[in-house]
Amino acid sequence: MSLTQLFEPSGVAVVGASRAEGKIGYVAMANATNFEGPVYPVNPSESGELFGSAFVPSVTDTDGPVDLALCCVPGPAVPDVLAECGDAGTGAAVIYASGFAEAGGEGETLQREIVEVADEHDISLLGPNTSGFLVPATDLRCSFASGVEAIPTGNTAVIAQSGGVAHVLAFQSRRQRRGVSAMVGLGNRANVGFAEAIAYFDGDDRTDAIALHIEGTDDGRRLLDACRASDTPVIAYKAGQSDVGEFAASHTGALTGDHELYTAGFAQYGVPTVDATDDLLDAAAALGTAPLPSGPNVGVVTAQAGPGIIISDRIQRAGGRLPELTAGTKARVDEILPGVTYDDNPVDTGRPMPEFGEVVAAVAEDDLIDIVLVYELFEEALGFPVDTLEGLAEEVDKPVLFATEGIDADLESERDAVEAAGVPTFETPERAADAAGALARYARLHAEEPPGAAAADGGWPRPGGSAAADWKGPRDE
Amino acid sequence: MSLTQLFEPSGVAVVGASRAEGKIGYVAMANATNFEGPVYPVNPSESGELFGSAFVPSVTDTDGPVDLALCCVPGPAVPDVLAECGDAGTGAAVIYASGFAEAGGEGETLQREIVEVADEHDISLLGPNTSGFLVPATDLRCSFASGVEAIPTGNTAVIAQSGGVAHVLAFQSRRQRRGVSAMVGLGNRANVGFAEAIAYFDGDDRTDAIALHIEGTDDGRRLLDACRASDTPVIAYKAGQSDVGEFAASHTGALTGDHELYTAGFAQYGVPTVDATDDLLDAAAALGTAPLPSGPNVGVVTAQAGPGIIISDRIQRAGGRLPELTAGTKARVDEILPGVTYDDNPVDTGRPMPEFGEVVAAVAEDDLIDIVLVYELFEEALGFPVDTLEGLAEEVDKPVLFATEGIDADLESERDAVEAAGVPTFETPERAADAAGALARYARLHAEEPPGAAAADGGWPRPGGSAAADWKGPRDE
Repeated sequence: MSLTQLFEPSGVAVVGASRAEGKIGYVAMANATNFEGPVYPVNPSESGELFGSAFVPSVTDTDGPVDLALCCVPGPAVPDVLAECGDAGTGAAVIYASGFAEAGGEGETLQREIVEVADEHDISLLGPNTSGFLVPATDLRCSFASGVEAIPTGNTAVIAQSGGVAHVLAFQSRRQRRGVSAMVGLGNRANVGFAEAIAYFDGDDRTDAIALHIEGTDDGRRLLDACRASDTPVIAYKAGQSDVGEFAASHTGALTGDHELYTAGFAQYGVPTVDATDDLLDAAAALGTAPLPSGPNVGVVTAQAGPGIIISDRIQRAGGRLPELTAGTKARVDEILPGVTYDDNPVDTGRPMPEFGEVVAAVAEDDLIDIVLVYELFEEALGFPVDTLEGLAEEVDKPVLFATEGIDADLESERDAVEAAGVPTFETPERAADAAGALARYARLHAEEPPGAAAADGGWPRPGGSAAADWKGPRDE
Repeated sequence: MSLTQLFEPSGVAVVGASRAEGKIGYVAMANATNFEGPVYPVNPSESGELFGSAFVPSVTDTDGPVDLALCCVPGPAVPDVLAECGDAGTGAAVIYASGFAEAGGEGETLQREIVEVADEHDISLLGPNTSGFLVPATDLRCSFASGVEAIPTGNTAVIAQSGGVAHVLAFQSRRQRRGVSAMVGLGNRANVGFAEAIAYFDGDDRTDAIALHIEGTDDGRRLLDACRASDTPVIAYKAGQSDVGEFAASHTGALTGDHELYTAGFAQYGVPTVDATDDLLDAAAALGTAPLPSGPNVGVVTAQAGPGIIISDRIQRAGGRLPELTAGTKARVDEILPGVTYDDNPVDTGRPMPEFGEVVAAVAEDDLIDIVLVYELFEEALGFPVDTLEGLAEEVDKPVLFATEGIDADLESERDAVEAAGVPTFETPERAADAAGALARYARLHAEEPPGAAAADGGWPRPGGSAAADWKGPRDE
């Protein structure tokens, strides 16, 4: 199944489009109408125009091809709409309605029915029970939420089981000044699941990292195989460790499963995991912006000791290592800054200073260091060491992360310059350290097989050992 | 020792004030000059005026009383400056210079010397080796960092061992739209330590919560006694769990100690602990804004299931409980919203809707609930249930927390109205849940002694048991 018609449609139909401002058929049309291709309002009970486009009675009546149908109709009407989509050659549909598998009973029957119709006509179904998706770069906004038009284009694809969490992540990415290449709420995953979405965004030119939110799936093996097959780094957030089973089951029709089983499974398949929405986006920014690390050894340079202690502690707890710097690097730091506050890892310059960039470069060039993390409170008179950072990550072929704090309006242009230099920026010492930790865990999971160690499955490292080998997901059948 | 002269001075002297823009004597003067009282530049080598005030050669030469001296002079010059302060009746001084106890050797001798002089003249010393303090409400800015003039007044007093972390927290509080009643970096704590600062801010009218950042102290017992004596809720962040010992010792002259020992000690003395700067400020906002909770039972109302799962899970991991709602509350929810998505705890309305506020009120009024947490993505057409939230926390005498996500510019005025209604707001599902968890832990630590259980020390609960009874701090002598 290709998701090209879903995420790159030539034309879009809003089925159930409505003039009534409160209705989802209105909001869906309002949000979709800025798409670069044609958007057709479909409703047999309406006539005239909506947002400048003429109503048509059926998706088969449009004057151009429709790849994607946004189904703003009640659940029971969906099978007929999909049959019409089949006749029209529409290869993708978003089903917003709930009352399908997550509701049990007749809802399960209805979900089986729509999958049958969709499979017969080769239609990719996003949902049901989803709040849709966004591709900001093409103004393709298939969601009803207020404000989605303000979410900017970034290079992380967010794939969330819950539409609500998908929106949480998209809005957060905006507050972090990052944006998304796409935001997808999978909902009930009738025939488009994690595996299909991961495969699609792995091939998407705008996507450099894939961020997953998972509640539970009965198809764990396919999810993991898709993660392993992805050349684009994948990072996962498995929600639900304690007992929220019954409530979770009522949501997208999947139980939240054994958290440790998921974590071990992801590790075995090369996917580091995190434990919060902001950490997920931070880790994706680190994996998607910087060169990938070749090991877990972090070199920290800080202009303030207190944040340096927090960062050094936290990196080690998050799976990174803080090796001693080489004698050559220490000598170089001492030469740049005679009497430096602390010349080992972390290097602490005591305050921002003109030589700060030189110290960062010295640590970045240390052969024992795989990942560089820089912390500096913003000092207006000095700014950030943008000149040094420009090209540094590429030159040393290591990820370089940068965290700071200050008044946004004062430091905005300097931070933008740091980001433009290929160095992702972070907001708190802890979140920066956790992002460096995620890079370190990624490096460990993707380490070359040690010589002589037989690979069980074509060379893929299996740090999780035997328990992970049997991972099938809690409801795999 | 009273810290009134330190934090509420009638007049301030900047000793070592300078016309040279790069020097700290210039920046300190620039930042202090907006203070509501007189600020005198002191420097025997300068004449004329700086920021409209005439230079004087000594703190004894000012034409009005000076309570506070900001010492922008090298360490070896400090004893003489303090002696002059003694002659002038100046009762407080900030020592910015480093090279004291944290440097070992002669630095330790120098620190002993300044403490002797200060004690002789009854001078409170903030520092040495500190970046100072801020009281935004009186424009008293005794720090050199860029941008501190933009930090607003809030109701949390930040007391940090590290000046760098103090600034991290102050800037963060601004990004969170909260601000601080004061920000203090203690540095080496020559004669003003945690205990003195906590006692002062407990008595400060602008302070409703005290947020501590601790690296390590050799005076743990006094710190804990001060926490116990404080009527104002205290929350603590102990930095450094893994091995960062040598670097930490180079910082403020204190080793980071055993993390578990600190956590147990704080718990025994009624102080919940957190593990990140943003969590520290969130917990302080929850403890400082809302009525204090009488138990750990959280009622969650969410308009989106996905964030609801994250929150429900996280609250339980953070020490809260999610009890089943009473039959009466469930019936009331079902009456308000027939066919509601989920009518137990969490209550999930499936989407924002006009009845959302009524559902929140129903859960808040449930007798089994001690703390209420509401999550709702912003929906422009509906806004937030401000009318219901107004007075609700007071009426039910329970803390009510609110978390949302959306486009800042769209929801700003609604969020401000929620805050004005006495309901603190939060940015991510996890951070809101962690704040609710901190409230729950606070309630557990402050629970009434169960009847018949003999109190070992005047009724204070001792959940930590015997290990905590011997807590003295890692370097208590």
